[in-house]
Amino acid sequence: MGQLERKTAGVPTLKRLPLYLRLLRQMKEKGEEYASGTVVAKELSLDPIVVRKDLAITGAVGRPRLGFPMDEIIEAIEEFLGWSNTSDAFLVGVGNLGRALLGYTGFEQHGMRIVAAFDSDPEIIGQTIHGREVLNIEDMPKMAKRLHVQIGVLTVTASKAQKVADAMVQGGIRAIWNFTPTTLVVPDHVILQREELASSLAVLSHRLLLQTGHET
Amino acid sequence: MGQLERKTAGVPTLKRLPLYLRLLRQMKEKGEEYASGTVVAKELSLDPIVVRKDLAITGAVGRPRLGFPMDEIIEAIEEFLGWSNTSDAFLVGVGNLGRALLGYTGFEQHGMRIVAAFDSDPEIIGQTIHGREVLNIEDMPKMAKRLHVQIGVLTVTASKAQKVADAMVQGGIRAIWNFTPTTLVVPDHVILQREELASSLAVLSHRLLLQTGHET
Repeated sequence: MGQLERKTAGVPTLKRLPLYLRLLRQMKEKGEEYASGTVVAKELSLDPIVVRKDLAITGAVGRPRLGFPMDEIIEAIEEFLGWSNTSDAFLVGVGNLGRALLGYTGFEQHGMRIVAAFDSDPEIIGQTIHGREVLNIEDMPKMAKRLHVQIGVLTVTASKAQKVADAMVQGGIRAIWNFTPTTLVVPDHVILQREELASSLAVLSHRLLLQTGHET
Repeated sequence: MGQLERKTAGVPTLKRLPLYLRLLRQMKEKGEEYASGTVVAKELSLDPIVVRKDLAITGAVGRPRLGFPMDEIIEAIEEFLGWSNTSDAFLVGVGNLGRALLGYTGFEQHGMRIVAAFDSDPEIIGQTIHGREVLNIEDMPKMAKRLHVQIGVLTVTASKAQKVADAMVQGGIRAIWNFTPTTLVVPDHVILQREELASSLAVLSHRLLLQTGHET
């Protein structure tokens, strides 16, 4: 079930699913046994029709008047997102942002475990950051291959980004989460996910500008 | 010019504009005097029609066969995004992520200057992080009011997010950049921009799952 539907999930749906998941886990902790699309929509200030469609895509089946059994809907979303199995990731670039991500404890709940961190700076190599020793970036491709690491988290400076991405691809990494402003060139089979703070800031400051009304 | 068009800019356009701006600034540094939508599209692997529409919305006018004069198009995008005037921001929550953002030097190029950082932890208050002394969060609302700060960057832990957002609103802050997983409730006139790492990760891991093909 769900293979065809899976392929049709758009980015907006994918981005909302973690929000549902977080809410549903909270509701479960409070002892609630069923979740309805209507309640989820209300809690997250979303359109109930959108929520219903999003939840349907996971293949979960609701019960009339009761909604979705809590465990079933949670499992369906996790399964749909590929979060029922955790993927191993390498992080490359242990600057401020790299350290912040290494310290973030939420990733494992979202299907990703950063198993090692790498840097090229001799002063940073060998340091232990949040329980992980920083390794030499030169060893990254062969380690990625050996450990079958699938995800590369790229937090180096912009000028090194392409070179490191190349090394990730060489190591067999198939998805790169790019926190640098560099537009990367990778083979077609490699998935790129860009985290673009400047883009978020653009949305925010444009909205602020419209509201303030100091046009011209 | 451009007031009406401004209102019609959708989020995808707003998110692409910073990418154009970065590329155009690079091209300018290399001494190029004109930029065409076609070249921008090619460099960023985007549809030329999309790029042309995006650039048109800024009100810049291209010259036949030459494209946009470089300074004009750069200025038009900056103006459109409200980045020609820098907005002051307060950051609240000096953990790993807060430190990373304080260390990020790119914000001023994107219209935002973090002028002060706040925390509630006595051990953190008084520390100097990237040239800014961390102040007591209790002083934040009245300082925001006095300095007419418009943007609040929220990097506290999830459980404190709503309380701090309330304090930001009390201080007259009109846009909150929310890096926490908490769904905030704020008055209608306050702009919320959410930075949701879990959502990005959802897109990435779902794509990885589709490609790997290990559906059950």
